[in-house]
Amino acid sequence: MSEGVEWALHSCLNLAWIGPERAVPAARLAAYHELPAAYLNKQLQALARAGIVTSVSGPKGGFRLARGLDRITLMDVVAAVEGPDEAFRCTEIRQQGPGAGPAGSYAAECAIAGAMGRAELAWRRELVSQTLDDVRERAELQAPTAPERIREWFAPA
Amino acid sequence: MSEGVEWALHSCLNLAWIGPERAVPAARLAAYHELPAAYLNKQLQALARAGIVTSVSGPKGGFRLARGLDRITLMDVVAAVEGPDEAFRCTEIRQQGPGAGPAGSYAAECAIAGAMGRAELAWRRELVSQTLDDVRERAELQAPTAPERIREWFAPA
Repeated sequence: MSEGVEWALHSCLNLAWIGPERAVPAARLAAYHELPAAYLNKQLQALARAGIVTSVSGPKGGFRLARGLDRITLMDVVAAVEGPDEAFRCTEIRQQGPGAGPAGSYAAECAIAGAMGRAELAWRRELVSQTLDDVRERAELQAPTAPERIREWFAPA
Repeated sequence: MSEGVEWALHSCLNLAWIGPERAVPAARLAAYHELPAAYLNKQLQALARAGIVTSVSGPKGGFRLARGLDRITLMDVVAAVEGPDEAFRCTEIRQQGPGAGPAGSYAAECAIAGAMGRAELAWRRELVSQTLDDVRERAELQAPTAPERIREWFAPA
């Protein structure tokens, strides 16, 4: 998984703490964690295409959350950044080579792909079951002053 | 995940069907599914380092299973080929940049890493719970003639 997922998740939490009324430029979100701005911008654009953040143009432009953290799951962010493909991609090698049976003679799903798919499903179920608001709650228990620090740093001059 | 995982899983099943008494060269295992031999050899070497297959040198050399399929889990093969790292790697960006708190002030685990870790754990649990023998059983239900076809094709001339 790319580091873009970690960056996107932290940026969503930061946007929530900053507040939904303000759009924040990618460069500013990147500076807060010393991340490369162009690459974080790419992740934020992916979040915008997925409807997780809204991209606002103009001098006061930037990104803001498109909906509440309680309506964004970990799966939403992972799928937005990494794409919808499964981690294990079956390329049907059972149908390749001298041992291959006649076309059309294969069960719908290779037993190996099925087994790997069950694991992927368990992973996705867990990602779907956790919202960013659950994560925010735990983060605030760990670091009660973080939201205030973030709001202050991002406050308009 | 690399295609090496799919290739390694199929190769383990093929080695089981060929039988534990014979070592099979990587090139021959690769030819059966029209795979690039050098790359499959790399995966088989990784399986050998993990103790899943045994590498036999000499004119009758090659690879054979080091233990029964009922003692090889999907997790064993994935870890052998992909390495032990988690798919989501937390790089602790919360501790980078102007908003970072004093060193040592952080909870043991970032709430984001914890949430992503729970999903990874669900994935790994499912991979650990399935042995290659479970997969072999289902494959044979789907394709009852596959084991015999494979034994015939790999039979010594």
